[in-house]
Amino acid sequence: MSRFFSEKYKKLVPYTPGEQPRDVVYTKLNTNESPFPPSEKAIKYAAIEAEKLQLYSDPTCKFLHQKLAETFDVSADEVLATNGSDEILNFAFMAFCDKNNPAVFPNITYGFYKVFAEINGIPYEEITLKDDFTIDINDYIGIGKNIFIANPNAPTGIALSVTDIEKIVASNPDNIVVIDEAYVDFGAESCVSLIHKYENLLVTQTFSKSRSMAGARLGFGIGCKALIQDLNTIKYSTNPYNVNRMTMAAGIGVLEDDDYTKKNCNIIIENRKYLEKELERLGFVFTESKTNFVFAKHPSYDGGFLYQKLKEKGVLVRHFATDKISDYLRITVGDSNQIKTLLTSLESILED
Amino acid sequence: MSRFFSEKYKKLVPYTPGEQPRDVVYTKLNTNESPFPPSEKAIKYAAIEAEKLQLYSDPTCKFLHQKLAETFDVSADEVLATNGSDEILNFAFMAFCDKNNPAVFPNITYGFYKVFAEINGIPYEEITLKDDFTIDINDYIGIGKNIFIANPNAPTGIALSVTDIEKIVASNPDNIVVIDEAYVDFGAESCVSLIHKYENLLVTQTFSKSRSMAGARLGFGIGCKALIQDLNTIKYSTNPYNVNRMTMAAGIGVLEDDDYTKKNCNIIIENRKYLEKELERLGFVFTESKTNFVFAKHPSYDGGFLYQKLKEKGVLVRHFATDKISDYLRITVGDSNQIKTLLTSLESILED
Repeated sequence: MSRFFSEKYKKLVPYTPGEQPRDVVYTKLNTNESPFPPSEKAIKYAAIEAEKLQLYSDPTCKFLHQKLAETFDVSADEVLATNGSDEILNFAFMAFCDKNNPAVFPNITYGFYKVFAEINGIPYEEITLKDDFTIDINDYIGIGKNIFIANPNAPTGIALSVTDIEKIVASNPDNIVVIDEAYVDFGAESCVSLIHKYENLLVTQTFSKSRSMAGARLGFGIGCKALIQDLNTIKYSTNPYNVNRMTMAAGIGVLEDDDYTKKNCNIIIENRKYLEKELERLGFVFTESKTNFVFAKHPSYDGGFLYQKLKEKGVLVRHFATDKISDYLRITVGDSNQIKTLLTSLESILED
Repeated sequence: MSRFFSEKYKKLVPYTPGEQPRDVVYTKLNTNESPFPPSEKAIKYAAIEAEKLQLYSDPTCKFLHQKLAETFDVSADEVLATNGSDEILNFAFMAFCDKNNPAVFPNITYGFYKVFAEINGIPYEEITLKDDFTIDINDYIGIGKNIFIANPNAPTGIALSVTDIEKIVASNPDNIVVIDEAYVDFGAESCVSLIHKYENLLVTQTFSKSRSMAGARLGFGIGCKALIQDLNTIKYSTNPYNVNRMTMAAGIGVLEDDDYTKKNCNIIIENRKYLEKELERLGFVFTESKTNFVFAKHPSYDGGFLYQKLKEKGVLVRHFATDKISDYLRITVGDSNQIKTLLTSLESILED
């Protein structure tokens, strides 16, 4: 830290992203990437744009917003694309929370919510999940604070129904409810359709998981026009050209190729079932995942130990050394080869 | 604006980027883009990465930082790449300025500085340029506030010498001096070499101008290790994966192809001389530009009028309808064809 660093950030603990090793070839099941390459259309469109990089990207993201609007059956002015969904989440904390408008979110959820609150000086409360890691919606009914819920939740993988989400949104009409649907395409229900009924609902999604574009950095928010206007005010006051040309074009490409995305999601759902069955055979227990990962623990082995042993065998999974979940591993559902490698490694560790 | 928008942003006036028209083909001389395509290596490397988009980009930007370090003769931990240079500038405002550490910058400069200060709730002072639009360095000597100077300045195009910059940096040892060198490659001197002498100096640059990569969104800061650490704390608390795979690879490609960049800069400098001579012939006066644009006015015509007439003829230039510079046009130095189209259009307007 330099002696120039602002007092207000001196205690800030940044988010720790999952390892992105560059040097060793791992079976990489630690950051919930898709095992499938991006859509051919996405690759092709991005490559075409690479030849025109001397020109700025369109700050209004017109064609991408139109395509997103068409895909989600909303208007283009109800959509905002960002540099990954972390950016739209940060914009939401900035735009709608402040000293007088605190945030609440589950105590076990995407670790970045807390960091967004901290960096923006926003008071926040972490609401304890039930012992089975489910969200008790009664904790959020009429709470009168801005609510951030990942649905399905991470790293638990457990989803709420749209009916339950609607109860939370309807009971907090004077506060914003942000539903982070990063993992929604793997078996949960999206609540995008509620945005026309509730002006206090913002839904965020990402191209990083089901759409095989983690490396392109593309996320988006969907909400009523006035919310999107506010988020645009933040965007145009921080980084108007936030989405580059190649990513914008790739985004349009993958949306045009929705069958490919759906096919891949179905494979992941099938692979998840298989992985769960095999993990069960090995003695693991796990939550009911609606995502592209399984959140599993073994009654006889410490999570940190298994994480380390797997890493030594060239398999990366995610382990959170934090209260209540340190027994667990978050394992990305990969393709059949990755699953085989994982299972073989686990079997060998458990036998030792 | 929604009723949920935070009080603190209700008066925020976002930055207005230059027009990026999508529908009509203009001779586009309004946002200081390069008329030259990106380096072949940049295109090739980006296209290769497009096929691997399912994997996250490296949040540490290891290889890009190494290449930047090599290019600028600094260490990799003295560099931070960002999603355009707007992001590194915003990070600098966030990291080093606050209620007790105000910012100062010229009253005529990159319009975003004021917006960055506003959105971050930072008090700021705008220091009036001299009548000839030059910076009086005495205004900044020992001022005891964080200083943001674009060098060369925009939209005036006028540069300070490194000797003058050093006087400012040396006289404010307890404050940060940010030198924004977006346009430095077109004839001005970079002060990157000073970062090993002054721990309070941050230099920012961009790939958008001389490197023909405006559409890729890539900027960076160079400063001592401790400053870069602070900026990393901000990055990891807002958007750890801020640079996508394709842009990162394209950035390495163009840095490997530095002769191409230098050749293009030399052409722009020659074209600028030619454009200035021709503008002089048409009766324009202009500042001494060390950039890829000319800041010119005609004694007999209003800037807004000329802007509008040029637009009607299919030529886009930038006009700022603000105090003291509303007579001026900021005209990007394009290739010979673009310059010809501009001059023909201007001749026809002036004849009418």
